[in-house]
Amino acid sequence: MSVAKEVEVANAKYAASFTKGDLALPPQRKVAIVACMDARLDPARVLGLEEGDAHVIRNAGGRVTDALRSIIISQQLLGTREIIIVHHTDCGMLTFTDEVIRGKIRADLHQNVDHIAFLPFGDLKQSVLDDVKSLKESPLVLDVPITGYLYEVETGKIVKV
Amino acid sequence: MSVAKEVEVANAKYAASFTKGDLALPPQRKVAIVACMDARLDPARVLGLEEGDAHVIRNAGGRVTDALRSIIISQQLLGTREIIIVHHTDCGMLTFTDEVIRGKIRADLHQNVDHIAFLPFGDLKQSVLDDVKSLKESPLVLDVPITGYLYEVETGKIVKV
Repeated sequence: MSVAKEVEVANAKYAASFTKGDLALPPQRKVAIVACMDARLDPARVLGLEEGDAHVIRNAGGRVTDALRSIIISQQLLGTREIIIVHHTDCGMLTFTDEVIRGKIRADLHQNVDHIAFLPFGDLKQSVLDDVKSLKESPLVLDVPITGYLYEVETGKIVKV
Repeated sequence: MSVAKEVEVANAKYAASFTKGDLALPPQRKVAIVACMDARLDPARVLGLEEGDAHVIRNAGGRVTDALRSIIISQQLLGTREIIIVHHTDCGMLTFTDEVIRGKIRADLHQNVDHIAFLPFGDLKQSVLDDVKSLKESPLVLDVPITGYLYEVETGKIVKV
């Protein structure tokens, strides 16, 4: 069975007991979360978010460069006034370099992706510091509280950086 | 209290009963979800995902253009072999145009962002079809099952497009 079929079955259960059909479009807690796409990190469970609470932006590494379009829309059109960044231990972004993945794609898919920055990093803590700094310095991002965390996939804990 | 302080409190509860410290890095169900950042849509709950199951990539609108870097990493380095796209009713992306948001940023932040495509759309169903097609045609994306859904924020149901 494809995962698509499985999620349709799971969704039928969710919809059967659904009671949140009147939530407003703007996030109630006025916060945008930027987190890694990693399968072991569920931002809602890890951070205690309910439906309607927060924008959740996710990508490989939880990198803000790749989240800028979404952050601008979140702040300018939907009123969020705080940003929380969550990277995590054992991240896949620690395991490769641009050269490695570009070489793999050249060999396997016969495509040149030298123009794509895959945004890997060598130091977890520094990756969070870099992303907080990048947002604080961006003229396109409002001057709002920005907090960075490392999520420990081994313990379930977030640790402020 | 900042939301950051609140999520620290919520996380202490999550970590106290955490039992999933030995999950593998690659997603167990070999699927990447691309979904909107909307606060009302919790992909894990809506689709029945547990920690460790799936990559979850989220951005404003759930647009694949903005998810390509992450999808490539997901497939090439972490072995996912299916993609599920989830857009939703009452999406903020239906409420503006590039001209509107560029004008707002020019007026409020005194910045020129004419180079940023904010990827709004006028038709929900078409936005899903466009994104499925875009991935199917991309030479950087593997030939895997790709399914598109609209999540109904009013009912909790997903509807295949």
